[in-house]
Amino acid sequence: MKNEMDAIVKTALIADAVPNMPWEPKPADCKEVVWRHSKNPIIDLHPMPKARSVFNSCVIPWKDHFLGVFRVDSLSMDPMLHLGTSPDGLDWSIEEEPITFISPDPALGKVTNAYDPRLCKIDDKYYITWCNSYYGATIGQAWTTDFKTFHQMENAFLPFNRNGVLFPKKINGKFAMLSRPMGLGMAVNYGDIFFSESPDLTYWGKHRIVFTRGPGKWERVKIGPGPIPIETTEGWLLLYHGVTDTCDSFVYSMGAALLDLNEPSKVLYRCQFPLMTPEKIYETAGYVGNVVFPTGVIADGDTGRLAVYYGAADTYTAVVYAHIDEIIAYVKEHAWK
Amino acid sequence: MKNEMDAIVKTALIADAVPNMPWEPKPADCKEVVWRHSKNPIIDLHPMPKARSVFNSCVIPWKDHFLGVFRVDSLSMDPMLHLGTSPDGLDWSIEEEPITFISPDPALGKVTNAYDPRLCKIDDKYYITWCNSYYGATIGQAWTTDFKTFHQMENAFLPFNRNGVLFPKKINGKFAMLSRPMGLGMAVNYGDIFFSESPDLTYWGKHRIVFTRGPGKWERVKIGPGPIPIETTEGWLLLYHGVTDTCDSFVYSMGAALLDLNEPSKVLYRCQFPLMTPEKIYETAGYVGNVVFPTGVIADGDTGRLAVYYGAADTYTAVVYAHIDEIIAYVKEHAWK
Amino acid sequence: MKNEMDAIVKTALIADAVPNMPWEPKPADCKEVVWRHSKNPIIDLHPMPKARSVFNSCVIPWKDHFLGVFRVDSLSMDPMLHLGTSPDGLDWSIEEEPITFISPDPALGKVTNAYDPRLCKIDDKYYITWCNSYYGATIGQAWTTDFKTFHQMENAFLPFNRNGVLFPKKINGKFAMLSRPMGLGMAVNYGDIFFSESPDLTYWGKHRIVFTRGPGKWERVKIGPGPIPIETTEGWLLLYHGVTDTCDSFVYSMGAALLDLNEPSKVLYRCQFPLMTPEKIYETAGYVGNVVFPTGVIADGDTGRLAVYYGAADTYTAVVYAHIDEIIAYVKEHAWK
Amino acid sequence: MKNEMDAIVKTALIADAVPNMPWEPKPADCKEVVWRHSKNPIIDLHPMPKARSVFNSCVIPWKDHFLGVFRVDSLSMDPMLHLGTSPDGLDWSIEEEPITFISPDPALGKVTNAYDPRLCKIDDKYYITWCNSYYGATIGQAWTTDFKTFHQMENAFLPFNRNGVLFPKKINGKFAMLSRPMGLGMAVNYGDIFFSESPDLTYWGKHRIVFTRGPGKWERVKIGPGPIPIETTEGWLLLYHGVTDTCDSFVYSMGAALLDLNEPSKVLYRCQFPLMTPEKIYETAGYVGNVVFPTGVIADGDTGRLAVYYGAADTYTAVVYAHIDEIIAYVKEHAWK
Amino acid sequence: MKNEMDAIVKTALIADAVPNMPWEPKPADCKEVVWRHSKNPIIDLHPMPKARSVFNSCVIPWKDHFLGVFRVDSLSMDPMLHLGTSPDGLDWSIEEEPITFISPDPALGKVTNAYDPRLCKIDDKYYITWCNSYYGATIGQAWTTDFKTFHQMENAFLPFNRNGVLFPKKINGKFAMLSRPMGLGMAVNYGDIFFSESPDLTYWGKHRIVFTRGPGKWERVKIGPGPIPIETTEGWLLLYHGVTDTCDSFVYSMGAALLDLNEPSKVLYRCQFPLMTPEKIYETAGYVGNVVFPTGVIADGDTGRLAVYYGAADTYTAVVYAHIDEIIAYVKEHAWK
Amino acid sequence: MKNEMDAIVKTALIADAVPNMPWEPKPADCKEVVWRHSKNPIIDLHPMPKARSVFNSCVIPWKDHFLGVFRVDSLSMDPMLHLGTSPDGLDWSIEEEPITFISPDPALGKVTNAYDPRLCKIDDKYYITWCNSYYGATIGQAWTTDFKTFHQMENAFLPFNRNGVLFPKKINGKFAMLSRPMGLGMAVNYGDIFFSESPDLTYWGKHRIVFTRGPGKWERVKIGPGPIPIETTEGWLLLYHGVTDTCDSFVYSMGAALLDLNEPSKVLYRCQFPLMTPEKIYETAGYVGNVVFPTGVIADGDTGRLAVYYGAADTYTAVVYAHIDEIIAYVKEHAWK
Repeated sequence: MKNEMDAIVKTALIADAVPNMPWEPKPADCKEVVWRHSKNPIIDLHPMPKARSVFNSCVIPWKDHFLGVFRVDSLSMDPMLHLGTSPDGLDWSIEEEPITFISPDPALGKVTNAYDPRLCKIDDKYYITWCNSYYGATIGQAWTTDFKTFHQMENAFLPFNRNGVLFPKKINGKFAMLSRPMGLGMAVNYGDIFFSESPDLTYWGKHRIVFTRGPGKWERVKIGPGPIPIETTEGWLLLYHGVTDTCDSFVYSMGAALLDLNEPSKVLYRCQFPLMTPEKIYETAGYVGNVVFPTGVIADGDTGRLAVYYGAADTYTAVVYAHIDEIIAYVKEHAWK
Repeated sequence: MKNEMDAIVKTALIADAVPNMPWEPKPADCKEVVWRHSKNPIIDLHPMPKARSVFNSCVIPWKDHFLGVFRVDSLSMDPMLHLGTSPDGLDWSIEEEPITFISPDPALGKVTNAYDPRLCKIDDKYYITWCNSYYGATIGQAWTTDFKTFHQMENAFLPFNRNGVLFPKKINGKFAMLSRPMGLGMAVNYGDIFFSESPDLTYWGKHRIVFTRGPGKWERVKIGPGPIPIETTEGWLLLYHGVTDTCDSFVYSMGAALLDLNEPSKVLYRCQFPLMTPEKIYETAGYVGNVVFPTGVIADGDTGRLAVYYGAADTYTAVVYAHIDEIIAYVKEHAWK
Repeated sequence: MKNEMDAIVKTALIADAVPNMPWEPKPADCKEVVWRHSKNPIIDLHPMPKARSVFNSCVIPWKDHFLGVFRVDSLSMDPMLHLGTSPDGLDWSIEEEPITFISPDPALGKVTNAYDPRLCKIDDKYYITWCNSYYGATIGQAWTTDFKTFHQMENAFLPFNRNGVLFPKKINGKFAMLSRPMGLGMAVNYGDIFFSESPDLTYWGKHRIVFTRGPGKWERVKIGPGPIPIETTEGWLLLYHGVTDTCDSFVYSMGAALLDLNEPSKVLYRCQFPLMTPEKIYETAGYVGNVVFPTGVIADGDTGRLAVYYGAADTYTAVVYAHIDEIIAYVKEHAWK
Repeated sequence: MKNEMDAIVKTALIADAVPNMPWEPKPADCKEVVWRHSKNPIIDLHPMPKARSVFNSCVIPWKDHFLGVFRVDSLSMDPMLHLGTSPDGLDWSIEEEPITFISPDPALGKVTNAYDPRLCKIDDKYYITWCNSYYGATIGQAWTTDFKTFHQMENAFLPFNRNGVLFPKKINGKFAMLSRPMGLGMAVNYGDIFFSESPDLTYWGKHRIVFTRGPGKWERVKIGPGPIPIETTEGWLLLYHGVTDTCDSFVYSMGAALLDLNEPSKVLYRCQFPLMTPEKIYETAGYVGNVVFPTGVIADGDTGRLAVYYGAADTYTAVVYAHIDEIIAYVKEHAWK
Repeated sequence: MKNEMDAIVKTALIADAVPNMPWEPKPADCKEVVWRHSKNPIIDLHPMPKARSVFNSCVIPWKDHFLGVFRVDSLSMDPMLHLGTSPDGLDWSIEEEPITFISPDPALGKVTNAYDPRLCKIDDKYYITWCNSYYGATIGQAWTTDFKTFHQMENAFLPFNRNGVLFPKKINGKFAMLSRPMGLGMAVNYGDIFFSESPDLTYWGKHRIVFTRGPGKWERVKIGPGPIPIETTEGWLLLYHGVTDTCDSFVYSMGAALLDLNEPSKVLYRCQFPLMTPEKIYETAGYVGNVVFPTGVIADGDTGRLAVYYGAADTYTAVVYAHIDEIIAYVKEHAWK
Repeated sequence: MKNEMDAIVKTALIADAVPNMPWEPKPADCKEVVWRHSKNPIIDLHPMPKARSVFNSCVIPWKDHFLGVFRVDSLSMDPMLHLGTSPDGLDWSIEEEPITFISPDPALGKVTNAYDPRLCKIDDKYYITWCNSYYGATIGQAWTTDFKTFHQMENAFLPFNRNGVLFPKKINGKFAMLSRPMGLGMAVNYGDIFFSESPDLTYWGKHRIVFTRGPGKWERVKIGPGPIPIETTEGWLLLYHGVTDTCDSFVYSMGAALLDLNEPSKVLYRCQFPLMTPEKIYETAGYVGNVVFPTGVIADGDTGRLAVYYGAADTYTAVVYAHIDEIIAYVKEHAWK
């Protein structure tokens, strides 16, 4: 790994060091910018007695190990949020019971049918956002400092919305979020990425389009933000999912774009090509075939190494690796003019 | 009219007097709580050279006459907002050109495809809200004090949303709005009424359900708030539209509910029956058959008289009359338990 | 009327005399086999305080006047069955409250969302069948002898079924019924007519197709039996509705066929053309435009005169007249070979 | 009429004189470029015993009177082509039996389900094109010289196609046709206008787009050519239908464009606004509500007067009048830039 | 196997002993109540020259070996019923030609497009029920005593119905059947389980709901009875399929419930969780991915062992094993309250 | 291979010898008429840096090696046509850049979104036809003599059309093409095979149906021609794809028919059964699961050997082998009567 790291003497990544992050060097014959963990999927079916599957989840380094908030589909296939811990970011131990939230108002109802969490540290708090059910899908919000007590907050938006992703720091003094407003139902064939800001995480406004579906075929049906945006000297690196339709169904791929650091609704570069598409059998067959759905990332500020966590086929948790500088170079080289 | 008015010595209505409001007494044989203006529709097709039709609009008393903001479908059937004036609230003169808004930010784009306006006075400003196009339908907002200069504000919500209706005063120190989040497309078969609040009309939050579709068949498909809620000693009187489906299409009726004065997401009474359904030929046949869609109201604080303006068949502007105390009594008598 | 009646010295109709039946002679310029009552619709919107509309109903002569079981859509548009009386079969007085049924088993649930009744005398009992809700639309059954006490029976079939129409006498010792099995939902685009038999009205079997949709365009989408089949020397005269689709919606017309007296699933003649299509404004515009839906008939055994009751636009009750011998001749002349 | 005609001393119209064409001067209060015949519809329901309705048809002057090829929906609602004659172009006598065609090849099958004919004189022959059924809708073709013997030709295109409209003379030595390729089914929500050419009416090619749906809302769903293009010094005047969708259904209006005389796939001017939309009850209610569908035109080369025949609500035949020079001026003034 | 069997000294199962039934003990690491046969699928693609695939079938012990009635999809993918024999219940020899039925009435038509058979012994006869085509899908019925001559009976119900499953003995003197009425088409998104009874297998009535879709997500779209209900001291054990939808398609799982012995429409316990979901590649990929569809069971009255036969991916026949007492305990422990 | 070849002393195939064609003898245990290449797929995902996948392509022998025109789905999943070369027809080298066409008219637009090419030699020219985008999918045409310069021609038809397949020689002096007209969109559920002819490849006409979907279930949804028809003494052997629907999606199989040599719209034999269905994991799972889509064939006139190239799962290129005489015998034996 030494030589490889030497080649990247300076990284554009602005992040803390995570020297113990999960990692495998790029295989010699790999010509792409991301490469799969050799033992994917890292979480198989039935990882624990009450769970059918675990996917579309989010992880962070925590002290000398790793924590995650996971989408756990129970045996009845109903999704909930569970806490997990791992010594190495690959071997996960997930709690049997879902996270319990302290509610700010009983009128918000109980947290049920909760899925696709994102986990974001801003200043000294950890924020979880997820797809929450409140008379339709919307963005649930909660915070914790110790991963023992979780404080639910107001839902960020009116339904229908999915994939609410916070930026890891305030921008121009405001909290900032990307999301994908979208209609009722599971197979809705549209959805674009918007930017919103808030003084307090309770009231949100100044909604701006970031970008819309298309123009490439791989993302012509719907798109949505993936992991927490990654700060770099070149802008916010946004990994996102893009969806196309076939005569059969949908195909979910992972794309990338660079957004302006101070005005993230301004797109600097948007890559024409996905970084990754469903190709392995654990990605093409399962509960929902042909899905790679990135939701989490660990980034090492010292080296620019990335470990991206993604849901595979709405069934498994898997990991790909990349160097952020290679991604940035690829995005810039292949950006739409 | 004298005797009739005498019968209602005290009204629950909390509003200014509008002695010159449009009015016809209830016909002797009318057994319902609302009755149609005898010369409906008050605005026919092609009321002006550049307009195909005018409907779903909102009016207010202004000095000794009346003003309105109208949905004008141009000859090409594209909707825009136009200002109108009337000496009596019935005979309207509508400006040829759409209202021009001063934009707070070019990124919001031009106001095009704007429809179904509501007009609301809060303190010393007049606010217009409407269905605005910004990468999907959402709630546009603007204010004016003189109906000459119109200041556009931020859109209230992310798409997709329709029928944003402000309350005519702050509640618990916050601006308050009802709206109907809904998906892309014209024939979406769902939609419920939500309540949101804002410190400043820019950032909105604390979204709460008011009520959902159903349970009566007439409103089982979708519902949406109608005119600005009417303040009464019994609560906010909400007139709204409810939609059912048939083996042919949709039928839009007008319903009513009373909401808590201090916590409007709390429903005090919701009437089982619509106050009015499409029955006249100008309501059952037209651009969209079977539509009565209330969007405006003039209320006389002295007498409790109401003139409700509604779009008929997405083609005409029409008026029905009612006494607010009769409506309140009817809503309470026929409320769902 | 004398001459006209003289012309038909002998009628094929097998029925009791109903000399006081509603009747208007055929207009001189009428070239069709059915002609509308001159004061249609006979039941307009809001015929009584709690009803929005009355249609798709069934009547019988009773002593010196007439009785009917009516589909009444309440103010909330929810349908129920109501009893009605009339001195002349045209001017109807309908009870405010729905018919109450004595249930054979609480597990059948309450009769709600009940519509499109048929009324049939077999031996000394009067049977009502209707579209009943029991975990889907199915055929409700009840009997009475005095129209004061109504005894509900078992539902005839599993869901989903509509338009269950009994024959007015046993055939080969068994009760006999026509019906239209069909899927869930209001706009289902298929539906054929089947024949079933029963020893006891509780258990039904020996289901046979009578005929399917098409081949004429007017009935290519779905068909369903109309009034109780009319016994004639030429076979059972079945009046039925046939439905076509347009680029807009559905059009419901009235057709006719003759079925074998002893084996009614055997079709003797099926008329290529509908006897009647929606043409008057009360048929083309309303709650559901373009609907004529025959459900009741009064037949005079002495003269062969028929008064057919039909729902118009799912909004009104209307009547057409005909001579049964003219219909039979027309059906035979224009039958599919 | 004198003065009015004087005002148009020179017309752009290139056509033979038809002094006896149907005509009514523009009403004094009419501010639009087309005005309806005062006794519309000119063909009502059941104009003849075997017909339910007649609409979407095409007429020509013939000797001292008028001939037409009519879409006749039979009593069973199946459409066929019938010949009609009229002394004045308004009072039509239509043959009971459909036109019989001499077939060039039995493999083409019988002409059934034939509709929306156009009638075009090129040199010394009269050509009929129509929507023909051959394993899907396509463009049938036939010719006659005497309107007694009709020679069917090859279908112009593969299915699925509708509204094949010939140009009234060869262009650059080739026959020329406009058409609207479109998918299977009645409610297909797309369709654009294409131009094709042929050396011999048997083999067609060099297909070019003329224009697509939109951008105005009134024509955003589908468009199709209407009557035979009208030659003028300003280009080919194309009257066409444009269709929008509402939350209920479709609305068919009449639009206009000017095409290059020598290269008709080149659009010179396309009017932003429809010339006419469904507004009268015979246009908004019927077999298919909200339809004006122009298919025929009589043009008087001496005066520039036009009588445009259109189907109303897929139920009636109706007529509007216009001056071609007014239309041309209107189209140019309101053309999309 | 000894120890394992010892652990279950007394079984709740009420059934004959089948000591030679197919069986594999539960793997040591298996934490679930059912476990797959180690050599699944037991019937692969093209098991015989004229068959593409064999699945959704039903087996019984017969003398010293096993018989089955199989759904065989022919090379053209059209399904038919075939007889099969096996020495051990795992290695099947299936007849090349479909079963021939002696018809009670030619009007019932030939048995074609027959699928998903169930095989049930009641008293001394063996009954086959299946999804039969008679102007729509309905429940075909036949009996045999020797598996050489098969007597077709009347169809049990009107269309549309699937999955007719007889109880293996009369209840309260009547034959009893579970079924799933459902609409036309392959992807219908609803379907509940009903109970019906019959004095003679010809006439059916007293239809009662057993349970409806949901509330768990895994069965929220449709449900249907699986193998013949299994009699136990705790009630009838019903294995059934439950279907959910994803943004891609459907997922079919196997659930379980206990029904009252004397009144089977009364549900004693319904398990919140499926017993089994599609997880192996032969279940997730094939003609229809993500299907486990149980239709047959062999139960050993001595030990409580079960071998459940299920169709995998509408392509293969596979087997899972279980102990009935473990299932009963699991169902009771995880029942909806 | 010797013996096997000896068995077929005389072949019905009319074609040049291709002794070096790719080939593997039929496995001993294979009971079907086609057998898969042992190392399928021959082109895997990412065969070259700019390509995601290569499939649905067409090859020919060229000098001592092989050429092909390939559908290459780029990294963005947009399809284009690329040239490829191979020494043995199995190991392919595909050019990085798409084929550039010399356009006959700029109005035809650029060739983008081009897919499913066919390659056909007629006289001394090589013709490529493909699914081209010109305001809808239609049949693009081009010719080359040296595979260096490619001359685009007029599109053969109006949209919407797919799978245009030329015959390899003129028939009755005319060029001849099979195609599948079809509607807009990817999942259209209909499509039949038509025959058209042309004097010059520019103007096409005399369109005739060849055959329609069904009657077997495997091809009941849509069908389309596959490789260039193969000339034999028994008629044109047409390999084609047939599509069925399941409750999940579509399944694409390969079928066969023999067409009259002089009048190819006349079907001599149509096989009831597909020759091949999706069964291997590379056929059942991928970008579009359950697809075998034949588009190319190499035929050896000396021996009757065939190598059929097909797209697998819209992801891979694969090959099956067959003897033409076995196919002909099979088709005739199993033909629909």
